[in-house]
Amino acid sequence: MSAKKLLILPGDGIGVEVMAQVRRIIDWLGKRRKIEFDLSEGLIGGSAYDVHGTPLADETLADALAADAVLLGAVGGPKWDNLPFDKKPERGLLKIRKEMGLFANLRPATVFDALVDASTLKPEIVAGLDIMILRELTGGLYFGQPRGIETLPDGSRRGVNTLVYTTEEVRRIGRVAFELARKRNKRVCSVDKANVLECTVLWREEMVKLQREEFPDVELSHMYVDNAAMQLVRNPKQFDVMVTENTFGDILSDCAAMLTGSLGMLPSASLGAADENGRRRALYEPVHGSAPDIAGKDIANPLATILSFAMCLRYSFDMEAEADLIETAVKTVLKGGLRTGDIMQPGKAKVSTTVMGEAVVRELDKIG
Amino acid sequence: MSAKKLLILPGDGIGVEVMAQVRRIIDWLGKRRKIEFDLSEGLIGGSAYDVHGTPLADETLADALAADAVLLGAVGGPKWDNLPFDKKPERGLLKIRKEMGLFANLRPATVFDALVDASTLKPEIVAGLDIMILRELTGGLYFGQPRGIETLPDGSRRGVNTLVYTTEEVRRIGRVAFELARKRNKRVCSVDKANVLECTVLWREEMVKLQREEFPDVELSHMYVDNAAMQLVRNPKQFDVMVTENTFGDILSDCAAMLTGSLGMLPSASLGAADENGRRRALYEPVHGSAPDIAGKDIANPLATILSFAMCLRYSFDMEAEADLIETAVKTVLKGGLRTGDIMQPGKAKVSTTVMGEAVVRELDKIG
Ligand SMILES: [Mg+2]
Ligand SMILES: [Mg+2]
Repeated sequence: MSAKKLLILPGDGIGVEVMAQVRRIIDWLGKRRKIEFDLSEGLIGGSAYDVHGTPLADETLADALAADAVLLGAVGGPKWDNLPFDKKPERGLLKIRKEMGLFANLRPATVFDALVDASTLKPEIVAGLDIMILRELTGGLYFGQPRGIETLPDGSRRGVNTLVYTTEEVRRIGRVAFELARKRNKRVCSVDKANVLECTVLWREEMVKLQREEFPDVELSHMYVDNAAMQLVRNPKQFDVMVTENTFGDILSDCAAMLTGSLGMLPSASLGAADENGRRRALYEPVHGSAPDIAGKDIANPLATILSFAMCLRYSFDMEAEADLIETAVKTVLKGGLRTGDIMQPGKAKVSTTVMGEAVVRELDKIG
Repeated sequence: MSAKKLLILPGDGIGVEVMAQVRRIIDWLGKRRKIEFDLSEGLIGGSAYDVHGTPLADETLADALAADAVLLGAVGGPKWDNLPFDKKPERGLLKIRKEMGLFANLRPATVFDALVDASTLKPEIVAGLDIMILRELTGGLYFGQPRGIETLPDGSRRGVNTLVYTTEEVRRIGRVAFELARKRNKRVCSVDKANVLECTVLWREEMVKLQREEFPDVELSHMYVDNAAMQLVRNPKQFDVMVTENTFGDILSDCAAMLTGSLGMLPSASLGAADENGRRRALYEPVHGSAPDIAGKDIANPLATILSFAMCLRYSFDMEAEADLIETAVKTVLKGGLRTGDIMQPGKAKVSTTVMGEAVVRELDKIG
């Protein structure tokens, strides 16, 4: 088997320094586990604009489309705030997601034992939390047509957006949900508002059919979106995989992220359609942003990006063992008391980005 | 001034017994504060169906439209589960809301000191919480046209709903928000998704204009809905009044309700358009349902309905002093250690619906 093509796009701000720590892990995998990647690096966001005059050069996009996986840091910063709309760093990110056809956004919400106190929720509610929110990312309310604002004859205005899903859109995100559940606890909760919204009646019916036809081994339940928001606060551990519409997923995944109390720890993945070999285009990135205020100071938390790379190993490269190793190393380092500033707690040791990355590699040396 | 017309609709299940406790408060107001209401009572839901063959008789609806305020218990129960769709108890509730034109749904999320431990969030996060979520209730995604499911030429299907608001719809809910804020801490946070949804760009622009034109004394801020869900979990006390779209409000108000940990304590109000005298049609009801499993046992919590009546005094009848008295009495009774089963805690005294109602009246005797 030829080496997997991995494209690294550090982006802007702290993206560069957190990605440098992932490089250490990649080196370690080569040295200790004899895993080689066909590695390339590119520019995206403000740093791409500075060199190419555009936040995503055609050549970089071509590399991304040819890659087996893309690992991204973060984009944006005040330096580029006043650029025209289509040159802004964020447009590079939106464009690469769109061109790669990434319709499935995986947002795990995980609480590490060592960080359970960071949550605003009581420890017994969130200790051991490990849920996966799957958000449909290219359809639903954020993309439906018609959309826009019109002026009415009397001078007042009317604003419109459209929530729309087709059978095929629901089934393809459903398949990702059921496949994810098979790698986890085999339970999918599909979130909709089928008591009010016809579009989500279709969503629910297609999920039911899909489960019956292709995933009878996975348990499927349904929940209304308002109740889902309640249940995330009441008892988040009741869930395994939640799958939902784009807007609902935007709201619920951010709510779930905040349950953990540590946004600096959360990875994400976005997946595209499977090709004839079952390979999906995929982009992995931390949930946090480019944090320009602390960029270049070697104090950012590299763990969300390291954990995003672990997701990459698990979901794009089927390297379960290596993904587990990295996650275990991160847990152990946290248990040992090392903290970057964003997750600092009394009595713990505050360390730099570099020291945190080195600590993870040292732990890998011990266990891997 | 003639007596205010108050229509009481106890409904089904525990609605009947919790409303009986409100009757005690009304009697107390007559005796001790010389406040008389033009009081009438009617049927709604399953109990209306049993008598009239419909969950909302025309005569009851006429009474509601003529009333200064309607106080409702709850509707529904297994006895009526198999009725045809348009005879179900819930249709009575939806019909009365629609016919009364109740476009503004007030959902306070309040944490009483005595119940702070009921929350899944840490006490320091929710102690003293007192926020008001205002949900637009007759427009937005739940009501927009076109809507439905169509079969496409290839046999697959397409489901559609429409998010739509006009200038006037935004301004009328905005006015309620700003007026509410004037009775509170003079801060409104308008929640939208103006970075993605044009309909909510209109929403934001109209809120800005309205504030500048009519409410310059009230502070207006804006927040994206996904961030709002995060902030409710991170630091809910940062808010005073939040105003938002129907679906967003459905999700956020239920999320906020669960922050309190005591759904049995939460009142709500729904308001209609103001007439030439500034009087708004109004319906007050607890957030909890009819709880058929515990109905008739004298164990339900009457406090949400009692607090709904306090909202009625405050918002429909401008009886601020009396509303404050009732809220204070409820707080004191809880502080004294009385609990119904749903809010029972170790070391407290478990009491019946009746005893809880009597305790509130006894407390009113002392302070009022
Ligand atoms: Mg978001
Ligand atoms: Mg709801």
